[in-house]
Amino acid sequence: MTQELDALKLHEKLKGKLEIKSKQKITSQNLSLLYTPGVSFPCMEINKNPVKANDYTIAGNTVAVISDGTAVLGLGNIGAKASLPVMEGKSILFKELAGVNAFPIVLNTKSLEENIKVIKAIAPTFAAINLEDFSAPDCFEIENSLQELGIPVVHDDQHATAIVVLAGLINACKLTGKKFNELKIVLIGVGAAGTAVIKLLFESNEFTPKKLIAFDRKGALNNQRTDLIGHKKFLAELTECNFNGLLKEALEGADVFIGLSSANLLKKEDIQKMNKPIIFALANPFPEINPEEAIAGGAVIVATGRSDYCNQVNNALVFPALFKGLIEGKAKKLTPEIKLTAAKALADSVKPTKNKILPKPLDKNYVKKIAEAVKKAIKK
Amino acid sequence: MTQELDALKLHEKLKGKLEIKSKQKITSQNLSLLYTPGVSFPCMEINKNPVKANDYTIAGNTVAVISDGTAVLGLGNIGAKASLPVMEGKSILFKELAGVNAFPIVLNTKSLEENIKVIKAIAPTFAAINLEDFSAPDCFEIENSLQELGIPVVHDDQHATAIVVLAGLINACKLTGKKFNELKIVLIGVGAAGTAVIKLLFESNEFTPKKLIAFDRKGALNNQRTDLIGHKKFLAELTECNFNGLLKEALEGADVFIGLSSANLLKKEDIQKMNKPIIFALANPFPEINPEEAIAGGAVIVATGRSDYCNQVNNALVFPALFKGLIEGKAKKLTPEIKLTAAKALADSVKPTKNKILPKPLDKNYVKKIAEAVKKAIKK
Repeated sequence: MTQELDALKLHEKLKGKLEIKSKQKITSQNLSLLYTPGVSFPCMEINKNPVKANDYTIAGNTVAVISDGTAVLGLGNIGAKASLPVMEGKSILFKELAGVNAFPIVLNTKSLEENIKVIKAIAPTFAAINLEDFSAPDCFEIENSLQELGIPVVHDDQHATAIVVLAGLINACKLTGKKFNELKIVLIGVGAAGTAVIKLLFESNEFTPKKLIAFDRKGALNNQRTDLIGHKKFLAELTECNFNGLLKEALEGADVFIGLSSANLLKKEDIQKMNKPIIFALANPFPEINPEEAIAGGAVIVATGRSDYCNQVNNALVFPALFKGLIEGKAKKLTPEIKLTAAKALADSVKPTKNKILPKPLDKNYVKKIAEAVKKAIKK
Repeated sequence: MTQELDALKLHEKLKGKLEIKSKQKITSQNLSLLYTPGVSFPCMEINKNPVKANDYTIAGNTVAVISDGTAVLGLGNIGAKASLPVMEGKSILFKELAGVNAFPIVLNTKSLEENIKVIKAIAPTFAAINLEDFSAPDCFEIENSLQELGIPVVHDDQHATAIVVLAGLINACKLTGKKFNELKIVLIGVGAAGTAVIKLLFESNEFTPKKLIAFDRKGALNNQRTDLIGHKKFLAELTECNFNGLLKEALEGADVFIGLSSANLLKKEDIQKMNKPIIFALANPFPEINPEEAIAGGAVIVATGRSDYCNQVNNALVFPALFKGLIEGKAKKLTPEIKLTAAKALADSVKPTKNKILPKPLDKNYVKKIAEAVKKAIKK
């Protein structure tokens, strides 16, 4: 209740978390350069050679944080306007953590096609596009349809989350002595984030687990299920899973639990049968199991999405640095190699302990390391 | 040439004239209020009552400066990306002159319908929309189609220009002792700006001239012309003009020349037959007649669009203050009454002299006066 009042009070005081400022004080001397008639010269240069916009305008360095408000936090489809506080929050994290200018645009759109058309139309203002809180499965098609824009278009609920989860797992393996290729992973929740996590794990031999069983609300994704279509069918094929039992059966002997679903669906008893359990209970704000209970059940490492427990696995550790690297490296799109590189750089940025497998968002040191690694990966 | 190099150098140094900043430094204490989980509370409040977005987000105070790049300065249809330096220039004038946050969005769109659809889609982020450098006649239909969005949508090439021209004429009349209702006005150029000037003059009895002859490239707009359609037909009917001669014939005995067309189409001899001529040669960057020649022809007052002559009649004197008033007064649209009020407030903000009929943009004193007058006019 205090947090509710504090949050509302702070938002009301700020009346928008962003301010747009001129980099240059306007004087009677420079007015005719910044504005008419002098401004016509950079316009004409860009008209001759559009890539010059990167030198002369914000289009070389500004990220759009775009949402249609259909899958906002754990709140669901609350609409464009109500999603704006989150998009402003992302935008200030871009600036405060990585020095990147970012501006939120929320879309009052009615269809998949309209979302794609509108984002294409406004793209010339921006150096990169961060898609945010679009619901699955539309989020996959929207992102796919925008890959040829010539600037990175990244749905961060997918990719930034996948990168931070992989980084956390890398360090959890280091701490527990487990080998990645021998892991048995149970993952629950195959929306945008869960899907991207699985895809990233199977993107390289280095991080492919021995076994991965993914669950949606109806059960394990496997090739016996006849109701699977689209990305879920793809995931069942990708993981080559033929398990057809319950969650608690899947967890027997498993090394890792990854939850990207909803609150309190895991019990102490469920994880007692796991093998030195690594628990990533990332449902937000309420994890699949609370950390105290997980430890009571024998968990060796417990991570959540919350800032008030240790081991916060939050995509805020990734998106500011990732986009900084993508923009500065002039990437045209986000590739699997860049994602893997970013995950390794994030993992390497700390000397992990069981209570600090990853840096905290405000540590900042990791930002430069990820951005530099990303820039190197682009050049390859 | 120096101006060209200086303008390019300054733009290259700045790499975009705008910076987006967080109003609040992020700390480990406030992170959970500005971002998850605390940010969900303002989201839920806005979801319950969308008008709360004005209290909690930038949607209460931020202007979108939107262009499709089809009629940029005197450069024509240079495209979205090449128009961005101008839109950034507008945005920094909003902030530096009136303290209003403004962000440029340039649209890579292909049709009238798409422009309208895209602008509607991105509107929830903004408190008002400044349409900029859309070509005529599309600009009229785009603006009309967006009047029910619930926020002011203003094509400033039309209305801010009309307001500043009217303010200049009010003061020119004061200085020359002419009465507005007895004026004979000759106007050339009936694109966005010229059309809006004529409409504003005929909006109230107070500023309706005795006679107004408007010219397009082919001649005077009158009811004998069979080629007139759309807004030009409307203007011919509005002005009740039956003149069918040449420009120089129209100027005989005229009090006012308003040029919103192109360079050097007026000669000294043309204005020698006018009556104590008031010359607004506003084509940019090259006026219809240069001020020295106009004075040699007997002009009593000469204004241009340029900052390097006295009497600059530029819509930068209007749009920052106008939008400040519209937003703070919570206007849902721009009305004729608000425009007339703004013009009077701008005229009244200086004690005019023949070489200073209006304030200079950086004087700033006028900004508050216009904004306050606009707010009062909204309440009526």
